[in-house]
Amino acid sequence: MNQHTTRIFDADLQTLVQKIGEMGSVAEKQIARAVEALQKRDAVLAEQVIATEDQIDALQREVEDKAVVTIARRQPVAVDLRNLVAALRIAIDLEHIGDHAESIAKEAALLTDRTPPREVLVHLELMAQLVRDQLTQVLQSYQNRDVAMALEVWRKDQDVDALNNSIFRELLTYMLEDAHNISYCTQLLFCAKNLERIGDHTTNIAETVYYMVRGQPLSEERPKADITSTLVPSR
Amino acid sequence: MNQHTTRIFDADLQTLVQKIGEMGSVAEKQIARAVEALQKRDAVLAEQVIATEDQIDALQREVEDKAVVTIARRQPVAVDLRNLVAALRIAIDLEHIGDHAESIAKEAALLTDRTPPREVLVHLELMAQLVRDQLTQVLQSYQNRDVAMALEVWRKDQDVDALNNSIFRELLTYMLEDAHNISYCTQLLFCAKNLERIGDHTTNIAETVYYMVRGQPLSEERPKADITSTLVPSR
Repeated sequence: MNQHTTRIFDADLQTLVQKIGEMGSVAEKQIARAVEALQKRDAVLAEQVIATEDQIDALQREVEDKAVVTIARRQPVAVDLRNLVAALRIAIDLEHIGDHAESIAKEAALLTDRTPPREVLVHLELMAQLVRDQLTQVLQSYQNRDVAMALEVWRKDQDVDALNNSIFRELLTYMLEDAHNISYCTQLLFCAKNLERIGDHTTNIAETVYYMVRGQPLSEERPKADITSTLVPSR
Repeated sequence: MNQHTTRIFDADLQTLVQKIGEMGSVAEKQIARAVEALQKRDAVLAEQVIATEDQIDALQREVEDKAVVTIARRQPVAVDLRNLVAALRIAIDLEHIGDHAESIAKEAALLTDRTPPREVLVHLELMAQLVRDQLTQVLQSYQNRDVAMALEVWRKDQDVDALNNSIFRELLTYMLEDAHNISYCTQLLFCAKNLERIGDHTTNIAETVYYMVRGQPLSEERPKADITSTLVPSR
C-alpha cells in the first residue's frame, strides 16, 4: 500500500474500532439493565432490554460489511489483515453477549410468586458486576492493543466461574429445602449460566486481542473453573 | 475476474463448501453422541465428545483463514463475496453448535443417584433427533443453494421450541413432586436448553443461506415458540 491507501486503510480501521466500542458500551449497558430488571422485578425495564437487542445485531452487520469490503478493496496482509479479522470476530462475540443479556431480561420479565432471598440476588449482582468489569477491560485492551491487559481478563474468568459455582450450589440448597423455591431458583440458574457465558465470550475477545497483536493464537491452557456440573448433590 | 481467476475462485469456494460439510457432519455426530452418552450415562463416550470439540474449532479457523485470504486475493463482489461471507458465518454457527454438544456431554459425564424416568429421556431424544434433522437439512440447503429448503428449516424451528417447552414443563413437575429429582432435572433442563440453542444456530444458518442466494436478509418475522420462561409455575 502507498501512503495514500495506507491513510484510507487507517481511516477504515478507525471506523471499525469506533463501531466496536459503540457495540461494547451498548452490550455492557444491556447486562446492567437486565440484571437490574431481574433484581427489581421490573418488567418494563426488561422489555426495554429485549427491544434494544436489534441495535446490537445491526451494529454487528455494519462491522461485518465494513470489514469484508475493506479486506476486498485494500487486500491487506499481516497485521492489517489480522486487525480486520479481529473486528469481525469481536463483533460476533459482542452480539452473543447481547443475546445473553436479552435472555436474562426475558427471565426478569416474569413475575414469580416468591421474591428470591436478598443474599442470592447479591451474589448474582456481584457476578454481573465482575462480568461487566471484565468486558470493559477487554474492550480497553482491544482499543489500546494491550496484550498484558487482555491476558489479565483472560485469567480472571476463573473468578466468574467460581461465582457461578457458588450461586449454583446456593440455589440447589434452596430448591431442596422447599419446593416453593423451585420456580425462581430455576430462573436464577439460567441467569447465572447466561452471565457465565458472557464471561466466556469476553475471554474469546481477550484471545482475539492476543492473536491480533502477536500474530499467533494464545496457546496457554485456558483456565476453567466451572464445576457446576459436579456440584449436583447426590442424595 | 478473467476465466483463469474465475476457475481458481471456484476451486477456493469448493474447498470451503467441503470444509463446512465436514464441520457439519462432525457437529451432527457430536450431538448424537452427547445425547446417547446422556441417555446411557456413558461417561467414556461423554469424554470422547468433549475431546472431539477441538476438531471443530480447528476446522472453523481453517474456514476463516481460507475465506479471508480468498477475499483479499480475489477481491470478489456481489454473489461471490456473499458466498465467502456465508462460509465465515456458517462456520461460526457450527462451532457454537459444537460447544453446545460439548455442554450436553459435560452433563452426561456426571452420574447422579437417580436415573431420569424413561419418558423424560424419550422426549429429549426426540428433540435431539429433530435438531439433528434440521441441521442435516440446512447444510443440504447450503450445498444446493436451496432457499425453499432453508426456509422450511427456518420455520420448523418452532417445533424444536415446542418440544423444549414440553420438556421444561415436565421436568418442573418432577422437581415439584420430589426433591430427590431436582439434581437430574436440573441437568436435563440445561441439556434441553442446549438443544434449543443448537436449533437457534441452525436457524441462523438458514438465514445465511437465504442471504447468500438472494442477496438480502430474510425480513420475515422469526418464528418464536420458546415460552419456557412463562411456564414457571406460580404456586
